Amino acid sequence: MRMYAVTGAASGMGAAVAARLRSDGCRVIGVDRDGPPADWPDPWITADLSTPQGRRAAVDGVPAACDGALDGLVLAAGLGPGVRREREIVEVNVLGATELLDGLRPALAKRDGAKAVVFGSNSTTSTPLVPRRAIALLGRGETGRAAKILARRRALSGPLAYAASKIAVSRACRERAVSSEWAGSGIRLNVLAPGPVLTPLLQAQLDGETGKQVRSFPVPIGECGTADHLAEWVMLMLSPAADFMVGSVVTVDGGTEALLRPRDWPSRLPLRQMPRMLWTMYRAPARGQVARYR
Amino acid sequence: MRMYAVTGAASGMGAAVAARLRSDGCRVIGVDRDGPPADWPDPWITADLSTPQGRRAAVDGVPAACDGALDGLVLAAGLGPGVRREREIVEVNVLGATELLDGLRPALAKRDGAKAVVFGSNSTTSTPLVPRRAIALLGRGETGRAAKILARRRALSGPLAYAASKIAVSRACRERAVSSEWAGSGIRLNVLAPGPVLTPLLQAQLDGETGKQVRSFPVPIGECGTADHLAEWVMLMLSPAADFMVGSVVTVDGGTEALLRPRDWPSRLPLRQMPRMLWTMYRAPARGQVARYR
Repeated sequence: MRMYAVTGAASGMGAAVAARLRSDGCRVIGVDRDGPPADWPDPWITADLSTPQGRRAAVDGVPAACDGALDGLVLAAGLGPGVRREREIVEVNVLGATELLDGLRPALAKRDGAKAVVFGSNSTTSTPLVPRRAIALLGRGETGRAAKILARRRALSGPLAYAASKIAVSRACRERAVSSEWAGSGIRLNVLAPGPVLTPLLQAQLDGETGKQVRSFPVPIGECGTADHLAEWVMLMLSPAADFMVGSVVTVDGGTEALLRPRDWPSRLPLRQMPRMLWTMYRAPARGQVARYR
Repeated sequence: MRMYAVTGAASGMGAAVAARLRSDGCRVIGVDRDGPPADWPDPWITADLSTPQGRRAAVDGVPAACDGALDGLVLAAGLGPGVRREREIVEVNVLGATELLDGLRPALAKRDGAKAVVFGSNSTTSTPLVPRRAIALLGRGETGRAAKILARRRALSGPLAYAASKIAVSRACRERAVSSEWAGSGIRLNVLAPGPVLTPLLQAQLDGETGKQVRSFPVPIGECGTADHLAEWVMLMLSPAADFMVGSVVTVDGGTEALLRPRDWPSRLPLRQMPRMLWTMYRAPARGQVARYR
């Protein structure tokens, strides 16, 4: 029986993914700060990923619940933009992903065709004023110092902490995805970047102090997404369809990114990156990073 | 019966998509400079998309063959990097997409849930030295002037023309995708950006003067993709799974983009774009570009 672990499995997109996997006959190890839904038959780890103890509980508990071998990992746990919660946001959204990826990678490497999907967000590309320094600190796992910088932005600190955390985690995934530990070990790691999806997380924003901002956020199709819809993309990215997909960020957002940043991506490789590119190309054959052609 | 049109249907990824659609019971109008495969039972338009006459033949012929209503459009026709063929490359890869999108949009608007998928390329993000001016000219459809600039790059002109054409067409798709004519009319338009896929187009590069460059191009999983594999992504992007996907560029490339550009995207919205962002947000409600929330 195929074994999956899903964080944030108690609600929203995580719950939708867990339900889809179970209806496909897979076993799902749920991880959430809340307890399991009624009648949940599979293993469940109640853990708060904003704390080192919670993350440790997940990293220890998942392999224990799956005999150390995992077919797939979905990291959907995340905190939305909340003011005066900068530290918690970056702990869950960044370390709640990177520490679980690193800790559970050995279990994924034990299964052929294992896949991991991490939730990013289209706020990564649609948010201005995100402090570059906070993103860099989060890239090194320095959540405390990053949270301090973010807290200085006062009323904006929640949305900025959210965007910074999702930028940092997207980049962390892309860097891991192509490495020998991941791509080189047959594991596919990709990022799904949703736009507004009506989940408890979004509902809390609509009801809270950022409600007006959220409602004025442009979505070209004039509708928000559904958790089931995004869960379908996760299922595709867990399937053999993703065998040739590595480190991609798949945006499913009703068009916000394309509306706000149509010309920013794709973009030519900048001249200043040529030395790094040539160095990467030089090392590629020894690293098994060139394709074998007939 | 569902009706699709596929350009480049005679070979490679276009042929793989056409075969998948037909095996799903759809009718496929094939468009290619070459004739149809043996036993092709559906309509076929033999047209060279590097010429205005060929593009006109497609724009006139497709609606005539489907009673003016189309469920989906796949633009897979493209020329690879060939030296001294700059003009042809940009004509097919840019105008062979934009003129067909504009000309066939009314047929797509006639069907509920219509989708269009255009082939980009991961060369858009992995190619240095692409002349910015050529990209801008291609964005305005000025292929002749762009080709002249590209031809000056001599030995590099083929790869640069290819990358410039795919950057220009990706941006053109993103800009169209979010507009009232597309998203606002219920049509979803997205871009698939493959890495190296073993098709006749790639084989010609491997056998030609750029063979060494192609072989040294890093692909983190150490394998190239297959036409069938990429066709699967096109099928997903034509399905209801793409109802909430608008103007996205889906990269399926074995990890090259993530290896070369891990930190360049996603990126925060630059400060200089804030006026445009605020203007977009200001106009969004009147344009139906804000989501209705409960």
